[in-house]
Amino acid sequence: MFVTFLSDFGLRDDFVGTCHGVIKRIAPDVQIVDITHGIPARAIVQGALVLANTVPYMPQGVHLAVVDPGVGGPRRALALRDGDGRLYVGPDNGLLLPAVERAGLAEAHEIVNPEYALSPVSRTFHGRDIFAPAAAHLASGATFESLGPVVDASTLVPSPLPEPRAIDGGLATEIVYVDTFGNAKLSALTTELVDAVGPPEGRRFDVTLGDGRVHVIPWSPTFGERRQGEPLLYEDSYGRVCLGINQGSAADALGLVGGLAVTLMPEAG
Amino acid sequence: MFVTFLSDFGLRDDFVGTCHGVIKRIAPDVQIVDITHGIPARAIVQGALVLANTVPYMPQGVHLAVVDPGVGGPRRALALRDGDGRLYVGPDNGLLLPAVERAGLAEAHEIVNPEYALSPVSRTFHGRDIFAPAAAHLASGATFESLGPVVDASTLVPSPLPEPRAIDGGLATEIVYVDTFGNAKLSALTTELVDAVGPPEGRRFDVTLGDGRVHVIPWSPTFGERRQGEPLLYEDSYGRVCLGINQGSAADALGLVGGLAVTLMPEAG
Amino acid sequence: MFVTFLSDFGLRDDFVGTCHGVIKRIAPDVQIVDITHGIPARAIVQGALVLANTVPYMPQGVHLAVVDPGVGGPRRALALRDGDGRLYVGPDNGLLLPAVERAGLAEAHEIVNPEYALSPVSRTFHGRDIFAPAAAHLASGATFESLGPVVDASTLVPSPLPEPRAIDGGLATEIVYVDTFGNAKLSALTTELVDAVGPPEGRRFDVTLGDGRVHVIPWSPTFGERRQGEPLLYEDSYGRVCLGINQGSAADALGLVGGLAVTLMPEAG
Repeated sequence: MFVTFLSDFGLRDDFVGTCHGVIKRIAPDVQIVDITHGIPARAIVQGALVLANTVPYMPQGVHLAVVDPGVGGPRRALALRDGDGRLYVGPDNGLLLPAVERAGLAEAHEIVNPEYALSPVSRTFHGRDIFAPAAAHLASGATFESLGPVVDASTLVPSPLPEPRAIDGGLATEIVYVDTFGNAKLSALTTELVDAVGPPEGRRFDVTLGDGRVHVIPWSPTFGERRQGEPLLYEDSYGRVCLGINQGSAADALGLVGGLAVTLMPEAG
Repeated sequence: MFVTFLSDFGLRDDFVGTCHGVIKRIAPDVQIVDITHGIPARAIVQGALVLANTVPYMPQGVHLAVVDPGVGGPRRALALRDGDGRLYVGPDNGLLLPAVERAGLAEAHEIVNPEYALSPVSRTFHGRDIFAPAAAHLASGATFESLGPVVDASTLVPSPLPEPRAIDGGLATEIVYVDTFGNAKLSALTTELVDAVGPPEGRRFDVTLGDGRVHVIPWSPTFGERRQGEPLLYEDSYGRVCLGINQGSAADALGLVGGLAVTLMPEAG
Repeated sequence: MFVTFLSDFGLRDDFVGTCHGVIKRIAPDVQIVDITHGIPARAIVQGALVLANTVPYMPQGVHLAVVDPGVGGPRRALALRDGDGRLYVGPDNGLLLPAVERAGLAEAHEIVNPEYALSPVSRTFHGRDIFAPAAAHLASGATFESLGPVVDASTLVPSPLPEPRAIDGGLATEIVYVDTFGNAKLSALTTELVDAVGPPEGRRFDVTLGDGRVHVIPWSPTFGERRQGEPLLYEDSYGRVCLGINQGSAADALGLVGGLAVTLMPEAG
């Protein structure tokens, strides 16, 4: 059985290792796959996107995700099941929903059973005390119902991913986050860009950034087709529209950051 | 069988991966749990604190820890057993002791048997050549005695953790380290603060930093009870007194670093 | 069965975790050892050195390595076998060769079989779509021949490691990279230094850096023999000549970076 694990804990502190220890004490034979712990602190929207992108590449199992700025407050702890039978454990702040909604939400429970938590439960580390133990117990065969009461799906905090909008023959979207290589991930899928402006191949776009700067940037199937230092729009490996620079950091060169509005308008011609 | 692993190796280089390889060559079926490798280089005191905090959450096994500024010098390599039967492997510089002393030191051996080391032993990477192989052999059933001679406990380098002191109705303590979120971990446990000044709940403290600056900071059970940007004293999930800021970095805002003296004095009232 | 994994993916994004998921979906029982994912982006030469250094410490298996600036271009995907029966999977850019050449290249195939790739294959993430699946299938018993056609060894992109050269009674070498502690790894093995100038023990060297600065630096078997802040030449744990500073960063103090030329000339006497 597998537990996958995504968080904003980073790897400098012991948060991730401690959760691994907790899982292994409960379920010694479970295999843990760390999707990433490099989600920036409290970045629910980036965490939600990365979880939705990566779950299809993960083995079936329990998908534990913790980006939880509301820890210690009234937000609920959730266990969700999707239409494919995958299980999800995490906070009720929208983090899990983009991943779950790919196959449809089949069942939602609140995690309240104290037998499936460490004791005492701290106020600041529910990853260790509530979420990791619940994931480990689920991976060991605990029934979904034993965790706590059913949650009405309409009461869940919704997905935080910004929806792209078609405007004036273009597409208004947003940078969700910037990756290690300095490439900016937009909230739009290539399929959404195609719906708004038609196939992007071979075209150049007026790219308007949030502060009004406009760059003319070609769509390019690969980095290798651009000269060194030249920007490009491309589809990333998860089907999402991205803004990069060949052998460089688009974020540094163009001042790109998460949350920045980006409008894509194909050049006439 | 489990080997847990804590070090100051970081994850940029191959040090951790190479130790994993060494362990798996000796003991292919052992499971390795990485507590953290983000201890700052040579920070024995932070490593000792994190090991003591986290071992109770780890499965029973061999706890390998390497923060070892004395590598290549005369410091001994140790294998320790605590009163709960947990085993520890690491350098004789105090790193292991706060974790071991929770259940009492039961047995100490020096690791000298060349059959349990790689050959040749390098001068700069005893994690790979001595400590990881010893941990793997112990996890595979090597007897404790076969590692080397018994060590007299009174000759061990003592714990490096600074002891808090009660003063004038307050508590003099110290920042041990700052975590990823910018929260400062003090050397005092909440129980020690209670002993010195009584229950902190609902009270405000004059917090004097090492350079004489004084901040008035409330004790708060959760971050969520403070406004954004407001500092708080709180108990972390390991029972330790910490200094944080709601949705911000206390280290950045208040200039906090490891080693800084901190005095906590409850306000009259 | 083991898959070891080295890349320049870093741990901030999901690239490594996604490849783990892909491997585990294909080969759930395979154990993965992460050598490092901290190779700087596109640093083929550093990746090649680290892979060659560390493979001898790894369990027998499939050695997956991805530092791949040519992704999306015409470079081939390779599966190599060395004289010891170890298997290697990665791009045809020289990355694998220094590791493979220790035991001699025994067999080379191009990976082209679409049954051993994800579908569709993205243009930017061959780690996930081609290399990780091929490694997982090999670790699960797929025959080497089934991956694709034999590659003529003379057509492989050669090793990128700079060769040290003996000059005027000294050795001209180069900094390959700087490690986490600020130590500079030179391209020369100690054995190569000995061949050029004789045993270095007890001697001092005129160390000429690329920009003409000359430092007089002693060879020292251990850091502990130097005073705090004093530079030293030493042999690292992989038999390579390095330039460090006791309890400090040689890179910061001396302005060392990868690619900088370094000439080592023993002082007369």
